[in-house]
Amino acid sequence: MELLQIEQAASLLLEWDRVLILCHQNPDGDTIGSGYGLCQALHQLGKRAGVLCADPLPRKMAFAAEGIVPSLWIPPEEAEYVVSTDIADCKLMGAVLDKYQKNERVDLAIDHHPSHRPFAKRLLLCSHEAANCQIIYDLLFHMKCTITPSIANCLYLGISTDTGCFRFSNTQPKTHQLAAKLMAAGADWFEINRNLFETKSRSQIALEQNALQTLRFYCGGRAAALVITQQMLQEVGATLEETEAIVNVPKSVEGVEIGATLKERPEGGFKVSVRTSEQVDASAICGVFGGGGHIRAAGCLIKQPIEEALRLLVGEFEKALSQA
Amino acid sequence: MELLQIEQAASLLLEWDRVLILCHQNPDGDTIGSGYGLCQALHQLGKRAGVLCADPLPRKMAFAAEGIVPSLWIPPEEAEYVVSTDIADCKLMGAVLDKYQKNERVDLAIDHHPSHRPFAKRLLLCSHEAANCQIIYDLLFHMKCTITPSIANCLYLGISTDTGCFRFSNTQPKTHQLAAKLMAAGADWFEINRNLFETKSRSQIALEQNALQTLRFYCGGRAAALVITQQMLQEVGATLEETEAIVNVPKSVEGVEIGATLKERPEGGFKVSVRTSEQVDASAICGVFGGGGHIRAAGCLIKQPIEEALRLLVGEFEKALSQA
Repeated sequence: MELLQIEQAASLLLEWDRVLILCHQNPDGDTIGSGYGLCQALHQLGKRAGVLCADPLPRKMAFAAEGIVPSLWIPPEEAEYVVSTDIADCKLMGAVLDKYQKNERVDLAIDHHPSHRPFAKRLLLCSHEAANCQIIYDLLFHMKCTITPSIANCLYLGISTDTGCFRFSNTQPKTHQLAAKLMAAGADWFEINRNLFETKSRSQIALEQNALQTLRFYCGGRAAALVITQQMLQEVGATLEETEAIVNVPKSVEGVEIGATLKERPEGGFKVSVRTSEQVDASAICGVFGGGGHIRAAGCLIKQPIEEALRLLVGEFEKALSQA
Repeated sequence: MELLQIEQAASLLLEWDRVLILCHQNPDGDTIGSGYGLCQALHQLGKRAGVLCADPLPRKMAFAAEGIVPSLWIPPEEAEYVVSTDIADCKLMGAVLDKYQKNERVDLAIDHHPSHRPFAKRLLLCSHEAANCQIIYDLLFHMKCTITPSIANCLYLGISTDTGCFRFSNTQPKTHQLAAKLMAAGADWFEINRNLFETKSRSQIALEQNALQTLRFYCGGRAAALVITQQMLQEVGATLEETEAIVNVPKSVEGVEIGATLKERPEGGFKVSVRTSEQVDASAICGVFGGGGHIRAAGCLIKQPIEEALRLLVGEFEKALSQA
């Protein structure tokens, strides 16, 4: 495996033709924005290129394909070179793309995850970048591509997704500088953010209605927990994926230092998400139950009825808060 | 009244001493950030200055006062010059500051509202700026002030408040450029955004629990309305101000083009907030009931029982949607 500098990666892409770009499974805005943004840039240079992902393009990100030139689009079997974008581990391509996981079939991996596990012949890893799309922006600069409005849409999508619209702690001054440039280049940033952050499905809203009723406070208001049962999900026709936003609710209440969401699994037991303030280590709490994660966001599995699961969790919350 | 350019305003501020800075009543992050940011800059230049507001500094913005130099702080009665920041109309100073509303007692008004109604001897009006703090940044640049971390906090507070953390349609490339500079200058942007956008009071959460139960859909899911009664507010101990975030919920549901929130007034009748998508004119709908506002966000008052108020509103929604 060869580690590349950005100029070297740009030179290779300028030499190559018939490029297949891979995105990771369950695609988010950053892998989609990287893949389609790069594909559009290659089309701009007159090269043939296509994008491949194990899962379909989410509806709210369909605009990312708008700048594609149909006559330059190639299906996977016609590819000569394979490039992966925002894929930290070849397993994240998904099982249906397993033929690209082996034998260094990927010619160039472009990634920003510090946890990247090398799988490609060549790797452009910029682990200090908040979003993979920040690397793609720099690549396009070195390739002397024009940032068209549709490329700007793709790159803005990735940057806004991975920084939670400039709120997550990974946001950098560079993130804002690029946002300014992408706005000036014609990105439809208002609609992109509205779709990403301000639109909820009716089942999500219905689920929130039910789940908020279960919010309880513990430890004198310093901890809070919320429960999502399988019955709730079935009643409103929601999937576990649609619980993503709710997970942050308990911790968002003023005075709460530990927020937990308990999601009942179809096979029983609860998947627990824990969010904490600076003073409390969420991964340590989850570690007690065999889980783990980051300091402020971690998870674990508790195979107990709800009352017992809550009792065990609150016991750990009390310990953690008495030390905080 | 004399209209000033930014260089002229900077020159005056460099000449003046004993400056009282006024913020508007019910202060938001932009008037607070502007007032305290400018005050800190004047202290940096060794000048005496103070800030005055009809209402107390909101707790989540208390950090704005951190960079103040106590020995240079002056009470209102010792001021020689008066400067207003982010005040579009002298009435918005609040009744307790009425002595500053008359006879051009304000020496310099610094504002960004296109609707500004002149009341000061001199006016620096930059109505194209997303936030008043963007003007203060430029002023400080012309005054050759250093952007200290605590000044950066103030200016970031204003910029993030007035653009809804870079999501509102007024956000400009310049907004992001300044955010990048303020981050580099040491702004505690993560905490500022967390307090502004991700923390809710317990009464706000309790109110959401109740109000979400009233969410109803109309016009085949293209309209939605939510009701907040006086009883709900009393039950959870919430104020009408704490309903700010809820107002956006009906419109945030996928497929909804008109979202309305009806807030019962203590004296009876409902204060209605209407939010719409691009195709529907919210101000026209509210105009039918004697109200008004912007194209996507407007309000009106309907002095009817709830069923009748909803019936009247939904009738207008149907008309508006049939034309959309």
